[in-house]
Amino acid sequence: MKEIGVGLLGFGTIGAGVVKLMGRNASLIEEKLGVRLRLRKVADLDITTDRGVPIEPGILTRNADEVLTDPKISIVIELIGGYKTAKEFILTAIENGKHIVTANKALLAVHGEEIYAAAARKRVEVRYEAAVGGGIPVLSAIKGNMAANHFGTVLGILNGTCNYILTRMTQEGADFSDVLKTAQELGYAESDPTFDVEGIDTAHKLAILVSLCFGTRVDFNQIYTEGISAISAIDINFAKEFGFKIKLLAIGKLDGDRVEARVHPTMIPVNYPMADVDGVFNAVRLTGDFVDTVMFYGRGAGMDPTASAIVGDVMAIARNLTAGIGRRSAPLGYLDNRLKNLEIKPMGEIVGKYYLRFSAVDKPGVLARIAGVLGACNISIESMIQSARMDGETVPIVIMTHEALERDISRALEEIDSFDVIREKSRLIRIEDSLQ
Amino acid sequence: MKEIGVGLLGFGTIGAGVVKLMGRNASLIEEKLGVRLRLRKVADLDITTDRGVPIEPGILTRNADEVLTDPKISIVIELIGGYKTAKEFILTAIENGKHIVTANKALLAVHGEEIYAAAARKRVEVRYEAAVGGGIPVLSAIKGNMAANHFGTVLGILNGTCNYILTRMTQEGADFSDVLKTAQELGYAESDPTFDVEGIDTAHKLAILVSLCFGTRVDFNQIYTEGISAISAIDINFAKEFGFKIKLLAIGKLDGDRVEARVHPTMIPVNYPMADVDGVFNAVRLTGDFVDTVMFYGRGAGMDPTASAIVGDVMAIARNLTAGIGRRSAPLGYLDNRLKNLEIKPMGEIVGKYYLRFSAVDKPGVLARIAGVLGACNISIESMIQSARMDGETVPIVIMTHEALERDISRALEEIDSFDVIREKSRLIRIEDSLQ
Repeated sequence: MKEIGVGLLGFGTIGAGVVKLMGRNASLIEEKLGVRLRLRKVADLDITTDRGVPIEPGILTRNADEVLTDPKISIVIELIGGYKTAKEFILTAIENGKHIVTANKALLAVHGEEIYAAAARKRVEVRYEAAVGGGIPVLSAIKGNMAANHFGTVLGILNGTCNYILTRMTQEGADFSDVLKTAQELGYAESDPTFDVEGIDTAHKLAILVSLCFGTRVDFNQIYTEGISAISAIDINFAKEFGFKIKLLAIGKLDGDRVEARVHPTMIPVNYPMADVDGVFNAVRLTGDFVDTVMFYGRGAGMDPTASAIVGDVMAIARNLTAGIGRRSAPLGYLDNRLKNLEIKPMGEIVGKYYLRFSAVDKPGVLARIAGVLGACNISIESMIQSARMDGETVPIVIMTHEALERDISRALEEIDSFDVIREKSRLIRIEDSLQ
Repeated sequence: MKEIGVGLLGFGTIGAGVVKLMGRNASLIEEKLGVRLRLRKVADLDITTDRGVPIEPGILTRNADEVLTDPKISIVIELIGGYKTAKEFILTAIENGKHIVTANKALLAVHGEEIYAAAARKRVEVRYEAAVGGGIPVLSAIKGNMAANHFGTVLGILNGTCNYILTRMTQEGADFSDVLKTAQELGYAESDPTFDVEGIDTAHKLAILVSLCFGTRVDFNQIYTEGISAISAIDINFAKEFGFKIKLLAIGKLDGDRVEARVHPTMIPVNYPMADVDGVFNAVRLTGDFVDTVMFYGRGAGMDPTASAIVGDVMAIARNLTAGIGRRSAPLGYLDNRLKNLEIKPMGEIVGKYYLRFSAVDKPGVLARIAGVLGACNISIESMIQSARMDGETVPIVIMTHEALERDISRALEEIDSFDVIREKSRLIRIEDSLQ
């Protein structure tokens, strides 16, 4: 049987998953492709630790060049992560005419354009299904069967660590720091969790989704990114009272010739299907002008689901090679010269509903002063809860607004926070309830 | 710009959706393909009625041969439906070297093998994403990015009419016949609803899913098919009491060298994501050995979502043609000579949990007799509700079983139904709660 040579850069957890899958399901893959995928070289700095997966002796090497230059390798899988070395390796592999499969969302979010341009010159494929949503085949669907749609909105729960923490906070009324500690003990959160809990990982994935859905280049640094570390049990409880759950959402919307691209804790109605996406699961919800609403749900991380997405990409390229072609479609699904440069809408111009929580001294007239400022800033109130005094001298006042301009909200909060009767910085959580 | 000729057979609702989409999103499609899709001929017996979509004058014809023989048409979309004529047209189009896109689930479920064999001989593609789940791109995902997985289970809510009826019955406590009437008035159900409510449409779709997931030919007639017309408000209420919802599920499972393939009303736990799939929405939930659980959710019918899936298929074929190849993959994703002929497991050998409802005369000892028969048939009881007398002389006795063999359940029900104290045929609803 004909063989297609595959090389792997990075033999960590995901790499081991790929090796396991290519070994265990080799005959299934052959039954579908009619060719054999042969793993010819695996490069990693550590070639001694046992990863617990069977690997052909002699294919492990510390020298990445053995992968990058082997003429028998047609497809290179990059699982090193990070920016610098990964980018060099990918560009070298492309220069050598090799097709690329990667799970490196950070690299694509920041340096995607350079990589795609190189791939266009050499007419090779760059596929990266595993970069967003782990095993969930959402990128393939956007570029593939849903390609005839203009997309309007994409919402994602894209980080298992954050979703696990928020789920446990919601279920147990626990505080962020306590749940984070458990998550770290269980291996669901890194010892330095910044990248996940501050929303950076989610923003990388959103950059990719926005590019694919709206056919535009995205400047990653312009994506507004707010994590979950400031979410407290009290906000989760108030959300519940109003019929909402708090999720860390990646939000992309097309608005004329601009896009919204933002990551922040978001209240969504409990009856949204996305509200039931709990624990380490991920979900992506899209609306297209013809397909209407579609949601994808599954495991957003982990050795095996990620390996499924990676080997799926390898198989897609192998089908091309077997059919005698190299590149069948560009990395973003659009012809390279048709990508737009849509501007990202500044946060001040976002229109939405808001949850506002004020910590006010329990004195007559406070509520009137807050409401006065809101009114003066064109913000109208949909509902309000003033609770009994909880901790010492302040009471929480919670206001859900009607649709308002974020710039007006910021202006109002700044003024209200300058009151002597306000004792903490007021809390703002955005609401997303406009979709069915 | 280069053009790829497309022909359409059938200008009904879905056909009009395809014409609308190809017109309205033509420039988006060009930005992605680099070629123009040109609708050259549309054949329908009715060429006078206005479908409300703009169509180039002169391309409408009553003569299907103009589509089937036009050398400028590379891709034929079949939307006639039914078995005989649709099959003839598709086989002729294949014979003439044309690629096929169809939404005809009934035809593929029953005559798929013959069509796929013809397509293999002529090296053309047959794509049919719209046949299952409307706009939801689940078939592409199974054949595409998830192709590296051995699938274990596929569950589907695949018929919008049934799901709409069950949703309203659940929300309102209404009876089947009343909700069906409203559904007919709203256009969600046909005037003869048999095909939908008796599960036949769902079984056609299941046949396709089972073939794709498990790589096997399926004899459609062997799929156990039970619809929702016998579901009553009382069963829906009892389901609620036990924490379940009733859905018409398509169930496919691989079990060694046999498969389960069955369609029937099924109780699923309310906290399953599928339990929240309401109204006309569809969902498909799969488990693969690497990807684990994945769910797809969206609109399972309708002019626009179905057109999205159809034009997505046309674009996939157009990408092949643009790259200079004809067929890139076989219709089921497996090489044609690698398809298996897995036996469908007889219902008697299914193992599962069961909801049993007996209508018994309210006399001492009845419950003991029922329990005695169940015990003698190896059926153990997980929980039980005996309600107060409701209508005249009988009381409903509801029993949820532990896992049992369906053959034992049938034997027990037959014996219990022969009791003089049992006044109606006992009711059985299968439970699916073994998945996470």
